[in-house]
Amino acid sequence: MKGIRQLADHLDISIGTVSRALNGKPDVNEETRRRVLAAAEELGYVANQSGRSLRQGETKVIGLMIASSKETVENADNFFLGVTSGLQSVFARHKLDLIMLPCPNDEDPHEYLKRMVARRIVDAMIISETQRIDRRIDLLSRAKIPFITLGRSLSASNATWIDLDFEGVAKRAVERLIARGHRRIAITVPSSEINLGYIFVEGYRHALEQHGIPFDPSLVIRVKSSEQGGYQAAHELLLLEERPTAVILIYELMAIGLYRRLMESGVMPGRDLAVIGFRDAPRSRFLQPSLTCFRMSLHDLGVKLGRMLLANMPAYAEFYSGDGRNTIWPLELVPGESDVFQVAVKA
Amino acid sequence: MKGIRQLADHLDISIGTVSRALNGKPDVNEETRRRVLAAAEELGYVANQSGRSLRQGETKVIGLMIASSKETVENADNFFLGVTSGLQSVFARHKLDLIMLPCPNDEDPHEYLKRMVARRIVDAMIISETQRIDRRIDLLSRAKIPFITLGRSLSASNATWIDLDFEGVAKRAVERLIARGHRRIAITVPSSEINLGYIFVEGYRHALEQHGIPFDPSLVIRVKSSEQGGYQAAHELLLLEERPTAVILIYELMAIGLYRRLMESGVMPGRDLAVIGFRDAPRSRFLQPSLTCFRMSLHDLGVKLGRMLLANMPAYAEFYSGDGRNTIWPLELVPGESDVFQVAVKA
Repeated sequence: MKGIRQLADHLDISIGTVSRALNGKPDVNEETRRRVLAAAEELGYVANQSGRSLRQGETKVIGLMIASSKETVENADNFFLGVTSGLQSVFARHKLDLIMLPCPNDEDPHEYLKRMVARRIVDAMIISETQRIDRRIDLLSRAKIPFITLGRSLSASNATWIDLDFEGVAKRAVERLIARGHRRIAITVPSSEINLGYIFVEGYRHALEQHGIPFDPSLVIRVKSSEQGGYQAAHELLLLEERPTAVILIYELMAIGLYRRLMESGVMPGRDLAVIGFRDAPRSRFLQPSLTCFRMSLHDLGVKLGRMLLANMPAYAEFYSGDGRNTIWPLELVPGESDVFQVAVKA
Repeated sequence: MKGIRQLADHLDISIGTVSRALNGKPDVNEETRRRVLAAAEELGYVANQSGRSLRQGETKVIGLMIASSKETVENADNFFLGVTSGLQSVFARHKLDLIMLPCPNDEDPHEYLKRMVARRIVDAMIISETQRIDRRIDLLSRAKIPFITLGRSLSASNATWIDLDFEGVAKRAVERLIARGHRRIAITVPSSEINLGYIFVEGYRHALEQHGIPFDPSLVIRVKSSEQGGYQAAHELLLLEERPTAVILIYELMAIGLYRRLMESGVMPGRDLAVIGFRDAPRSRFLQPSLTCFRMSLHDLGVKLGRMLLANMPAYAEFYSGDGRNTIWPLELVPGESDVFQVAVKA
């Protein structure tokens, strides 16, 4: 790779002039500028922004840390790619680039992030899949790297976060089912320490209690957030002594595995068991009967996430003064046929 | 963020000793080392690897450039996440990290890559979705950045590449259909300038000619690589004057849209039209009748890609001396019910 010195030598022009030509300064004549740019292209000159960044203390790169677990891969989740386009639409205005940092599934996310911070390739970070206690938040706070979390955490009291409205989803699902006569309503939650599971169960428990239905821990089914987890959840549901009449799912692809296991046992979703799914996903649109679930725009979520992050970065805060506050992101109910049946009221 | 000087001041120890303690040098006593590491943790000290890299000329980071087009997002393609785990398993041995560089869908990939190269955040690059003529290859060659392409290109005569066996897939699909009496066999290809489309059609054309069937350009259907593209392909197929009896698809999710459009017209895949899909994908496993398609391990492809890249990097080449050659990656046929019907032989 050629540097500016080789370029100046090749053209027999001073380094200062070459630099001014490359940087579009007005005091270079047009012919010289053309010669410099042509030679730069020909010789493969690339400005050393790494050196520049070190002086300015910025890389103009924002990192998005994602888990690349076996589950994420097999389930081909479009969540992060969807959010990416929204983030980029905001960052592009400031000539900032987004890179994705996929944490290997056999590595501790805290250690991984520590190493990526040490590499100094990003000016700011977005972390996701926040755990109930998440040491990454401390790490970024202490390293004084601007960041935002996609997801709440007990560790995030001083951090800015945006999170999906898990309480709202749980509440509306429970109320919809209660209105149709259901009282034994099961719920699935992730088997990991991811924080959203706690929030989801709290919303469910609260909504039940508001309707005078006691919380029954045996109806909280902990499984992996995957199609396979859905299969497992159905399996456990069917083994319960007094079978619930409805189930609320936490993860978009669970419905696929759940339907399969139910049908294997001759239990028809929407007729024998009411099912409410979580996020609308392309893969679950083929389910028969169609799934009642919730919808959101990933692009819009990405836009808001980007604005909130920049509101926390001194260089950009002035443009996003209204975007700094923690945000609960709403989801809209999409009625399907999977929860249409009414429970017969006992005399 | 605290630097080494603040750390030394805080501990009242010389910078040299702090540095030796942090770097695990043996001439520091155990008690001092413990104090230094504890303070480093407490104060949020992070080694400035950017400075280190600048001196050593390496970042220990490998970039994987991916397109984040609207199609990729909507189709929730798991291709790159699948390859990532394989790449990471190779890179981890050398303490190299993989980052993903998602090119925004409204930006020219060449300009995007130029900027990312200028940012100097990666030691080497993997580029994918190679176009028939791909200026990114020239750019990386001239910038003297080690790279490998996932996909062939007319521009890649001096580059190392790995590519899926598109010819082999086209050939086996054609031969399987010919053996069942088909002679009017349609094929779908991407409407873009992506190179794989050219290779796929060449393989198809060659296989037909080997069996004495003339190539008919009207049977080559150019559509987007998406579910919607599959819908469109079926639509165009149904409008052809002499309808083909079979179709070969290029992209994994096309089958879903194609099935839908066919069924809307009462045309049953596997009974009225033989269908052979491309890569086996979780989302297409729910199709009825089941899809005949091809299978590969994304993880293993990632491993090979990683090994080939390192074989091209001076610092690692010695470990991968057998991995430097261009590679055609095989796919295995998965028979389904979508291509079972035989064409009646005319008397």
